[in-house]
Parts: sequence; structure tokens; C-alpha cells
Amino acid sequence: MNPDIIQQARNNTPLVHHLTNQVVVNFSANGLLAFGGSPVMAKEMTEVADMAKASDAVVLNIGTVLESEVPAMIAAGKVANQKGIPVVLDPVGVAATPFRQEVIERILKDVRPTVIKGNTGEIASLVDTDIQMRGVDSVGAGNVDDIAEQAGKKWNTAIVITGKTDVIYTDQQLIYNQTGHPLLANITGSGCLLGSVIAACLTTSYPVSEQLHAALCFYGLAAERAAEQPDVKGSGTFLPNFIDALSCAPKQLNGGPNDDI
Amino acid sequence: MNPDIIQQARNNTPLVHHLTNQVVVNFSANGLLAFGGSPVMAKEMTEVADMAKASDAVVLNIGTVLESEVPAMIAAGKVANQKGIPVVLDPVGVAATPFRQEVIERILKDVRPTVIKGNTGEIASLVDTDIQMRGVDSVGAGNVDDIAEQAGKKWNTAIVITGKTDVIYTDQQLIYNQTGHPLLANITGSGCLLGSVIAACLTTSYPVSEQLHAALCFYGLAAERAAEQPDVKGSGTFLPNFIDALSCAPKQLNGGPNDDI
Amino acid sequence: MNPDIIQQARNNTPLVHHLTNQVVVNFSANGLLAFGGSPVMAKEMTEVADMAKASDAVVLNIGTVLESEVPAMIAAGKVANQKGIPVVLDPVGVAATPFRQEVIERILKDVRPTVIKGNTGEIASLVDTDIQMRGVDSVGAGNVDDIAEQAGKKWNTAIVITGKTDVIYTDQQLIYNQTGHPLLANITGSGCLLGSVIAACLTTSYPVSEQLHAALCFYGLAAERAAEQPDVKGSGTFLPNFIDALSCAPKQLNGGPNDDI
Repeated sequence: MNPDIIQQARNNTPLVHHLTNQVVVNFSANGLLAFGGSPVMAKEMTEVADMAKASDAVVLNIGTVLESEVPAMIAAGKVANQKGIPVVLDPVGVAATPFRQEVIERILKDVRPTVIKGNTGEIASLVDTDIQMRGVDSVGAGNVDDIAEQAGKKWNTAIVITGKTDVIYTDQQLIYNQTGHPLLANITGSGCLLGSVIAACLTTSYPVSEQLHAALCFYGLAAERAAEQPDVKGSGTFLPNFIDALSCAPKQLNGGPNDDI
Repeated sequence: MNPDIIQQARNNTPLVHHLTNQVVVNFSANGLLAFGGSPVMAKEMTEVADMAKASDAVVLNIGTVLESEVPAMIAAGKVANQKGIPVVLDPVGVAATPFRQEVIERILKDVRPTVIKGNTGEIASLVDTDIQMRGVDSVGAGNVDDIAEQAGKKWNTAIVITGKTDVIYTDQQLIYNQTGHPLLANITGSGCLLGSVIAACLTTSYPVSEQLHAALCFYGLAAERAAEQPDVKGSGTFLPNFIDALSCAPKQLNGGPNDDI
Repeated sequence: MNPDIIQQARNNTPLVHHLTNQVVVNFSANGLLAFGGSPVMAKEMTEVADMAKASDAVVLNIGTVLESEVPAMIAAGKVANQKGIPVVLDPVGVAATPFRQEVIERILKDVRPTVIKGNTGEIASLVDTDIQMRGVDSVGAGNVDDIAEQAGKKWNTAIVITGKTDVIYTDQQLIYNQTGHPLLANITGSGCLLGSVIAACLTTSYPVSEQLHAALCFYGLAAERAAEQPDVKGSGTFLPNFIDALSCAPKQLNGGPNDDI
């Protein structure tokens, strides 16, 4: 991990415009604040273009998307593309229903994301590979490297596939991250908040591959640190400690067994 | 309490499709994850039937319901009935406004819930018994047993009335539960999350009366355990500890003074 | 601070009807419950008038407002005015987009708030003073006293401007509050929940100036107490401890260095 990326992201206090699901709005806002960014959650069609113009990055997340919210997502994404600021697309549960597949297709027709981030099943669905899904979670396995590469080439974007080992595909290159903790899977929105932290890191001046790795590595190390706190006895007490850890300096988190770069 | 119900519910990792209020979506998701279920919160009309078809149980909760959300609730409930999976109906604040009464009537016209869960005032309202309400909370008393029985017979469903003593009516039988803790009343959505845990327990192969009792008894014991943690000094620190406790094995919680069965 | 105001607010257990943003609904509800009030969050147009009629105070907060939600805000506010119960208006991010400015103008055309509460940039925007904004946060400075006085006179209402020093303008009088803690700025919705606590205090029988000062002073002291708890290591662990502190008796919080009145 390049700690300068985390530091520069914090120096930017990037304003990240989220059009995200209602389950995670509060957690995403508190997590991004702890990391050092500035969240805004406007989703009224009339104002999203104005808000995106004032922002440093845009996050589009379809976790509880309504049909009526799709035009605002597309409008914000288009403004971000025009302005040249990063767009993180999180196709939550895209394989679960035809509606979600159609929404993602409509977004990808008009918006070019900087990165698409999802679990194996979600990214597989974007390249028509069939992975067993359960609600918004993927439970099947697959050749994750191949899926990442195919999706990245098809949609001309960086790809992040989260899992026990996270896979990053960008610039025809595969990068891996092993940091993290199983408790992350027991709190809702841990993937969604990762999207916010990625967005913040993408506002820095480093190559995308390094930015994505720094975001994933830092996020996982923060989870590891949180899980080690003496007052953590389960996912409930893990959550506030994880928010705390997101504000740590990288060197406070470094040196763990899974910090492989 | 039959601990095998809790264990079997966890073995199922049931996918519970929630159409619930925006105040509690995050808490319900984190609580159900801790308990061992898998939450999904889709509410777009276009996809709710697909999502309900893929689910193991459906929760309908009108806490902040909009008129535009009612058709999706009915559609998800109908699919659940056709598929034969459990439906938990939580008529939050139904006595507070004519709109909520009409919404519940419309739902009950088309959907047959497995259980209706509410406080005394809410269930009383379903049998046209007048109980003093304050917002979405009932503050009056009444003959709770009678109300449960009348509601169960009128709507041909099991009834849970939560309170200091919880009353379960099913199969012409009244069952009581005394577990719980006053701090539960100080966190928003404690009744809503109970609906999610009930839904998970209803996916097991036991009689409904035992499933409901197990869910209520376990939930209350988890609250008792959380309240005993040394770092709990109020409702704020109770909440994460309660989420932790929801992932405990029943035997870790058993033996408290209120575990009467 | 007059501790009797806090006590009387709690004796009232005021039902506070919120039409607020989806980021903070859960936090506002849990915080108000801890303080001693009773939250309700209905926002369906069909029922908001009924709910406001049954309530003791109304909070209008435009943090994530949709065009479709504006009529319900106005309807609830009008009922509150007719009934003579307090209305707290929180113009979150009003300077950030023309849409928000228009929404606030429409609300203020039909509803007379008891108090408008915001940060410097938000209140400055209500008197056409230009303050540098970043998303929904104001980052510029200005003559805060002047802004408060101008806004109060223009809109014929009390004004609260939150900041390191909070400024209250009412009855041609300026009052200051210095309690608080920097961690409040790191949790989303700390300003929104303050609006709920103000609403609760406005249901008491004291002068508005004293009610507002008591709410602000108590809120800040609760934050100071929370930050002193040994298990607080960041904004994540601060949050549950802050909720705890909101249920403290004023004398448990008093005597801190910033309790200047």
C-alpha cells in the first residue's frame, strides 16, 4: 500500500456525491467522514447535476434503487464524466432480478465508470457469466481473475471484485489484496462504504491501480485493527470500532500479516 | 424455548425480503445478519415479485409507508403466499392515522400473513378496539389476551402482541413470553427487527406456536444479556451489544430468570 | 442553562413529527428517544396532516429532500402553525443548489417556523449573503452575529447558527453557547438531531431564548461527556456514548469548562 494516497485523499477532503441505497446512507456517511472525506447524498433529479458539478467524485449504488431514481443516477454520472471526476459504480444484487440488470445496462450506456466494484456474482453478471446468487450476495465460485479481466475489457473500466482475496483489474493488469476480516461480511453496507473510500482515493494524483490497491488494503487493515480491539465481541461492537479505525493513519494499521505490498 | 429452532433458522441462512420503513432498514439488516439470516430490502414494484420468489420469507412493515409503496408490498406478499413462504406483517402505527388503517386493510385483503406482530394498540386497532395511541406507540392498556384472540380469529393468522409480557395467539392457544429488557423500548426499530427474527424462525420445520415463542424468547434473552455487558451505560451502548448478543448460541443466553419455558 | 427546561421536556415526552432526510432518520430517532422524546417519521402526504395534529412539535429538514416530499413538509408545517405547536426548520445545504433555495422559499412562504437552525452558510443564504459552501457544509466565515440578526428579522423567527460558538438570535437579543466537542462534526446528522432536541425543548413553558439555549448547552455538554468516556477512540465509538449521554440528567453534565451560563 502507498500511504501517500491515503494522506492525499484526506488532504483533499473530497466531496463525494452518493446516489446510494437507503440501507447504507448513514453508515456510508459516517464511514467516509471518519476516513476524511465529505459525503453528500442528494438524489432529487432537479439538483443532482448541480451537486455533482460541485463534487470531487460520484458513487452510484443500486442496492435499493427505484425506477424513479435511475434518471438522477445517470444525470449525476454524466456530469461527472463531463467534468472528469471519478465515478464508482456498485451494481449491488445486479444478478438477482432482471430489473437490476436493465438498470445497470441503462447506466453503463450513458455513464463511463472509473471503476465497477462488486462481488463475484455481480461482476460475473456483467459479462453474462452465471454465478449462483442469493439475494444480493454471490455464493458460487468462478474463475475470478477471468471474470475481472472480461468485465474490464468489455466495459473499458477498472474492476474490483471483493472477496476473501480482492481482485483488481486495470490497465491489463491483475492486482490482489488480502487484507480484511470476516466480520466485515456481517455488517450491512461494508461493500458500499468501500465504494465511498475508493471514490475518495480516486481523487488523488496516483495511477488508478495504486489508488484502488491503497483503498482496498487500507480498508481491510482498518477492519483487522477494529477486530483486535478488546471491546469487540461481535458484529455490533465491531461496527463503531471499524469507523474509528477508518480515521487511523496508515502506519497505525501497517505491518499486519496481510499487508502484502 | 426450543433452541433447535434457532439453530435450524441459522442453518437455513434464510433470505428475508423486507419492505420496511426507512428508519430501521440499517438496524434490521445488521440485526438479521447477526442472528444468522440474510436481509434484502428491494422495494421497486418492477422487481419485488422476482425478489420475493427468490426469498425464504417476506416482512411487510408500514412504519414510514408511502402510498406509492403499497402496491409493491401487496405484490411481494402475494408471491410469498403463492410460494408458501412465511409473511410477517408489522402494522406500525396503524391506529395513528386513517391512511395507515386503509393501507393495512388493502394489504390484508390480498395477502394472508403468517403472523401479525404489533403492540397492543396496533393489534387492537385491527379488531376495532380503541386503545390510546401516541404517534406509533400505544400507551393505553386493554385486555391483551382478548385482543390477541379476536385479531387471530378475525384475520385467520397467528398474532404476536409485544409488551412487558409478550402474548402469542395461534391455533386457539395463548402463549406468553417474559424475556426482554426495558432498554429495548429506547432503541428505534426493536419491534421491527423482532419481525425479521420471527421471519427467520418461521422458515424452520416446527409448529408456528413454537417458532414464535423461540423467536420472542431468544430475542428477549439477547436483550437481557446485552444489558448486562459492563460497557453498557444507556441505549446508545446497548445497541451494538444487542446486535452482538443476537449471534449468541441459545445456551449462552439460557438460564436467565425470565426464560420461563 | 436552565435544567428545568430539560426536565419539563422529558416530562412531556413530546411526540416530534419529523419530515427529515433519510441519512439521519435512525440516528435522530434513537437520539430523541434517549433524550426523552418520542419520534415519528411519517412523510406520506395523505397522512402528514393527521400525524402533525397528533404531535407536539414538527421538524422540517431538507437534507435529502425530493420534490415529491415538499408538499408534505408544507402541509405538516401549516398544521403545526394552526395548532400552535413549534416548528423547527433545518435548511440543510440550502446554499448548495438552486433547488434547495427554491424549496426553502416555498416552505417559508406557507410555514412560519419557530426557529430556523443551520450552519453559517445555510443561514447566510437565507439573507442572500454569500458564504463559501462545500456540499452541505459551510467553510467560509462571516459576521455571524449580523447574519443571525438579519435572518431573524427577515423571516420573523428565532435563529440558531451552529458552530464552534453557537449563536442564538431571538427577541432582538443575541445569546451564545460554547459547549460542544469537535467529534460532533465527524458524525453525520449531529446538526439534524440537535433540531429534534430543540423541538422537544420548545414544547416547554419557558421563553424561546431560554429553551434554545438549554437545548444547545445540554447537547454540547452531552457531547463533551461522551468524548470523555474511556472507551471512546474516535467518531465511531463516540456515537453510542453520545446517545447515552443524551439521557443524562443536566446535573450529571454540568460544571464543565464550557457551561458558561
